[in-house]
Amino acid sequence: MESSKIVRKITCKAAVAYGPGESLVIEEIVVDPPQKMEVRIKILFTSICHTDLGAWQGRNEAQKAYPRILGHEASGVVESVGEGVTDLKAGDHVIPIFNGECGHCVYCKSENTNLCGKFRVNPFKSVMVNDGKCRFSTKDGKPIFHFLNTSTFSEYTVLDSACVVKIDPKAPLNRMALLSCCISTGVGAVWNTAKVKPGSSVAVFGLGAVGLAVVEGARAVGASKIIGIDVNPDKLAKGQKIGLTDFINPKLIDKPVHEKVKDVIEGGVDYSFECAGNLDVLREAFLSSHDGWGLTVVLGVHPSPRLLPLHPMELFDGRKIVASTFGDFKGKSQLPDFAKQCMDGVVKLDEFISHELPFEKINDAFQLLIEGKSLRCLLHL
Amino acid sequence: MESSKIVRKITCKAAVAYGPGESLVIEEIVVDPPQKMEVRIKILFTSICHTDLGAWQGRNEAQKAYPRILGHEASGVVESVGEGVTDLKAGDHVIPIFNGECGHCVYCKSENTNLCGKFRVNPFKSVMVNDGKCRFSTKDGKPIFHFLNTSTFSEYTVLDSACVVKIDPKAPLNRMALLSCCISTGVGAVWNTAKVKPGSSVAVFGLGAVGLAVVEGARAVGASKIIGIDVNPDKLAKGQKIGLTDFINPKLIDKPVHEKVKDVIEGGVDYSFECAGNLDVLREAFLSSHDGWGLTVVLGVHPSPRLLPLHPMELFDGRKIVASTFGDFKGKSQLPDFAKQCMDGVVKLDEFISHELPFEKINDAFQLLIEGKSLRCLLHL
Repeated sequence: MESSKIVRKITCKAAVAYGPGESLVIEEIVVDPPQKMEVRIKILFTSICHTDLGAWQGRNEAQKAYPRILGHEASGVVESVGEGVTDLKAGDHVIPIFNGECGHCVYCKSENTNLCGKFRVNPFKSVMVNDGKCRFSTKDGKPIFHFLNTSTFSEYTVLDSACVVKIDPKAPLNRMALLSCCISTGVGAVWNTAKVKPGSSVAVFGLGAVGLAVVEGARAVGASKIIGIDVNPDKLAKGQKIGLTDFINPKLIDKPVHEKVKDVIEGGVDYSFECAGNLDVLREAFLSSHDGWGLTVVLGVHPSPRLLPLHPMELFDGRKIVASTFGDFKGKSQLPDFAKQCMDGVVKLDEFISHELPFEKINDAFQLLIEGKSLRCLLHL
Repeated sequence: MESSKIVRKITCKAAVAYGPGESLVIEEIVVDPPQKMEVRIKILFTSICHTDLGAWQGRNEAQKAYPRILGHEASGVVESVGEGVTDLKAGDHVIPIFNGECGHCVYCKSENTNLCGKFRVNPFKSVMVNDGKCRFSTKDGKPIFHFLNTSTFSEYTVLDSACVVKIDPKAPLNRMALLSCCISTGVGAVWNTAKVKPGSSVAVFGLGAVGLAVVEGARAVGASKIIGIDVNPDKLAKGQKIGLTDFINPKLIDKPVHEKVKDVIEGGVDYSFECAGNLDVLREAFLSSHDGWGLTVVLGVHPSPRLLPLHPMELFDGRKIVASTFGDFKGKSQLPDFAKQCMDGVVKLDEFISHELPFEKINDAFQLLIEGKSLRCLLHL
């Protein structure tokens, strides 16, 4: 009987970006029904990440596509599903993921990557994979572009089913939104990418939500030393609440950060995490790790055209560097269990939500993030 | 009674470097007795590696130290041991290692590195660790500098015991010399650093002795595809004898090498090895590896001041890059077993020795290597 169900267009509110840096416009839009292997979901909560900020500001010319609905950190409920979708149904509690998992490609079948061949994170994509078209339009019929496989700044959105994760209906959706991006990215970088061992030492460069999620992941796994590095002095108190054991403010020291890290722990840390998106910081993170075995995990987005500031011979000191996307979680396979771990308190989420606002105040939420005042501002739709 | 044994200075033949690029001078030198924790060994076989060539040519200003005895790939027999040496005695069959293992430092105690804190490879070191002095002198009493913890271009040499590996006395010393460097470096990079799995695919950039040792290691472990890349067409036949399945000569193709590699194996290889010491080659090696999980292992020495030609965002494609020193073998702990594997034919050594000459012809052996005519020329002392 499922196939005979009539699925209609929906008219709803969304926050539409019309140009770089221009205030988002809350307006009524039209959301098409989900096509083959797609899912339409009702967004209940969404928050804003620096990647939204970057796209909104139009930092990268190739990413510009307007009008557009941004947003990728959210939670919601399935409204309807398209042809062929069997793992999701109306009413399911879900979180959208910007780094999808089709389950069938050579990448999804490999144990060694979470980068799906078809739905991996791609900031340059602005249409649906199925037909290269948009499922959003303005009331007068102009297409509105998609963003990061998700576009969550809307009461309803359409996603490929590869980008929708069903979670336990008892999980609190007002916290699970964080698993769409920052918590999974940060905690996963510690657990899956670096595989940080209990008792080891960690340095985290940049204490935004992702950096603090690294701190939380390191605390949860039993790291003995967790050193936070940030130029914002307010991050000390916030970081300590989560699990920082030491804090370095680069503005207040008279030597390179990596030397200061080695004052805290002889030889350097076992693992360093770069969450700042700055290449000079990346180099400090690299040098802060212990020679012989230190691992630097890059999480920051680096818009600068500069190349890696490392000489090839420096690799012979035994330091390693890798990047981590979405915490190396395979979203559909692994996030349901991770959500349970969060429900069980293995990972604590409350500290990450610094503000809550109604969806209509989304431009205020952007401003809070720009000014470094919020960690995550949860918008209620 | 050991301690009452009289250990004298020895006068013997050595090949002494007096200046960059100048022919080595075969002359009588004086070799002091081994001091505390040192070992004096009689070298029976030695060969020449590109690192000797680089030091001889004086490529790096900071490495210049003359007169000096070069050489680090060799085999021999212990002549006498200094105070405190308990794991070696006169008559033991040994191979010198340029990357020592003291067994006591934080690095030696870690499972994650073979870079000893005290005796790791250091091309800038030219004296003994014990007292900062030389154990070699000219007949008129001038000190002669050491090289790479080893200095094997001499009938007798003195090493720290951390740099001497005892092997099975039945092992053929005329083959075991190769374990001092090229075979351990190449095979170990495959087995220990990359941990190449049976059935996987491998690309080797630069088919000198180290590159061909990578090929041998990959063959031994059961790689299904082994692609060799070299501008010297003679390497095809040599490589095939060892285990190459495919060969690319960059001079004979009209597209970048990494695209050609992907013509051979869709998506690229699981592992690539850079054995050329050239940064453009390194970039091709990196791009030849499969996105999502490809690993590039850097073996080449890169004298250029250029930084890594990689953008940080390229790491987010899931390709990894690491360097490998001495094949990640902990020399004293692991080489005796590796020597047995070579005796058992798990790894085949014969193909690597292309020439044999008496020690006195060492300058001819240098010339053969410079001209790309020899793989390894074994010198008989």
